[in-house]
Amino acid sequence: MGKDQTMNRNKPPWYAGLEAGGTKFVCMVAAGPDNVLVQTSFPTTHPEETLGKAIAFFKEHRPFAGMGIGTFGPCDLNPASPTYGHLFTSIKPGWKDADILGTFRQAFDVPTGIDTDVNAAALGEFTWGAGQGLESILYLTVGTGIGGGGIVNGRMIHGLMHPEMGHIRVPRISEDGSFAGICPYHGDCLQGLASGPAIQARWGKPADEIPADHPAWQMEASYLALAVNNYVCTLSPNRVILGGGVMHQKHLFPLIRAQVKKLLNGYIPWPMILEKTADYIVPPALGDQAGVLGAIALAMQTVEAG
Amino acid sequence: MGKDQTMNRNKPPWYAGLEAGGTKFVCMVAAGPDNVLVQTSFPTTHPEETLGKAIAFFKEHRPFAGMGIGTFGPCDLNPASPTYGHLFTSIKPGWKDADILGTFRQAFDVPTGIDTDVNAAALGEFTWGAGQGLESILYLTVGTGIGGGGIVNGRMIHGLMHPEMGHIRVPRISEDGSFAGICPYHGDCLQGLASGPAIQARWGKPADEIPADHPAWQMEASYLALAVNNYVCTLSPNRVILGGGVMHQKHLFPLIRAQVKKLLNGYIPWPMILEKTADYIVPPALGDQAGVLGAIALAMQTVEAG
Repeated sequence: MGKDQTMNRNKPPWYAGLEAGGTKFVCMVAAGPDNVLVQTSFPTTHPEETLGKAIAFFKEHRPFAGMGIGTFGPCDLNPASPTYGHLFTSIKPGWKDADILGTFRQAFDVPTGIDTDVNAAALGEFTWGAGQGLESILYLTVGTGIGGGGIVNGRMIHGLMHPEMGHIRVPRISEDGSFAGICPYHGDCLQGLASGPAIQARWGKPADEIPADHPAWQMEASYLALAVNNYVCTLSPNRVILGGGVMHQKHLFPLIRAQVKKLLNGYIPWPMILEKTADYIVPPALGDQAGVLGAIALAMQTVEAG
Repeated sequence: MGKDQTMNRNKPPWYAGLEAGGTKFVCMVAAGPDNVLVQTSFPTTHPEETLGKAIAFFKEHRPFAGMGIGTFGPCDLNPASPTYGHLFTSIKPGWKDADILGTFRQAFDVPTGIDTDVNAAALGEFTWGAGQGLESILYLTVGTGIGGGGIVNGRMIHGLMHPEMGHIRVPRISEDGSFAGICPYHGDCLQGLASGPAIQARWGKPADEIPADHPAWQMEASYLALAVNNYVCTLSPNRVILGGGVMHQKHLFPLIRAQVKKLLNGYIPWPMILEKTADYIVPPALGDQAGVLGAIALAMQTVEAG
């Protein structure tokens, strides 16, 4: 990207996007998916070091008109709250109560918006990816954790706090009776049964070392299909986007689609579900960039809102 | 209401509201919950008779500025579709493909809006009831069927079709292992396990004949709590409103609240859930009038939208 950086630097406005994930931080300065000035990523360690690295990166690549942050959570997203932009409970040691938003607002004097990493990814796909032109989409990431974000009537879901879709309860697959689940809060919630670490705990090796014909994948698809069935019945999205590390196993998609159709059993008689399932349940068009590009889209929205 | 009718008749504008439920139709002409001109209800039989009765009632009580319909479903709510306002599949014999909206648009030359009965009830509570001033609410009815409607960022959830929240899958309660569930489409989806007819099928008598200390209620509360947990994790509503015939059993509320808290287990660290659960999971402030008043609110919205 070296040459383009210099060429593009003079074409404002630029935006800063941060995907603050539980596993890694991704930082980007861009004006959209086809106009990325610079990008970096590093593992999420303790807050001081990780936030410090992000600040150093963005300082080096100023100026930008605004900043968007998609963060892991749960996070306080109520602008009227004294702890707006802080993390609450966190499964990640050391991050409880971390003031994510305040840290960047203090470092950079630009409009800065914050949302969940998965709401940001949903916004990214809605703006430039598989959700373009749709009224309502669901974005689910299946990786170290499971999280979902959503756009309803063109706007991100907030309400009381923000969605925590990985923590829904689904029926147990009968062959999986003895596995307790690995969520420290709920044991066998969806995240406890179907996240990357759950697959590793159940089968004794990481997901990317398990061959495509292993029964692990039919079970994984069954759990994710039960979850997608529940989200579809609750939110009625125009499209379901499944991203994250586990979904790099592309053979999961046809398995999940077939199971979702079976679960809905014709009750939602929509061609999109009955016939065009391959267009209904899809990978992110922005791939693994959905989150950080969503943070760029959030920065743009924040600047626009003034 | 006789005298008031004559007195109020001259105070326009009036609106027509129809709650077209699978069990009964409720028809109202009103200008809000404190200004009801006239109301009637009758059982849902076959479409010709039932729709005919509703038309006759509204003809008798003209004029009104607009009409709102909250209907059972599933129903086509896409204004661009040739079957807009028609039912799709219906569990109710004879109603498949019934043109609910067209029937009333043909009979009355006023702006007419249509939505699901439960989205209408959510809108009613949002406008005049337990959802006033909130950004996002969930309304669940538990009766002959189970259905949910929702307001997100002040607007009803549509997307691909509309929510069908009664058809989510939840884990089976261990004591309930042998009951197959009564949903003709899904067997043991939530509606198949926890609707009024499911209670009757499992215990051999209707819900309102089962005493409050019977184990049926702890099981019912457990299923509804699993569902509420899932909706809260997916939609993050500011309030959860539980209505419908089964929820007339008020002793269910404390049981459900306790179970939801247990299921969330502190992961959503919000005072509304941790401490004020009695303010978070509530009966409809409009009681059994939520649906038909919601239809009145929908009529108002439709006239306003022009």
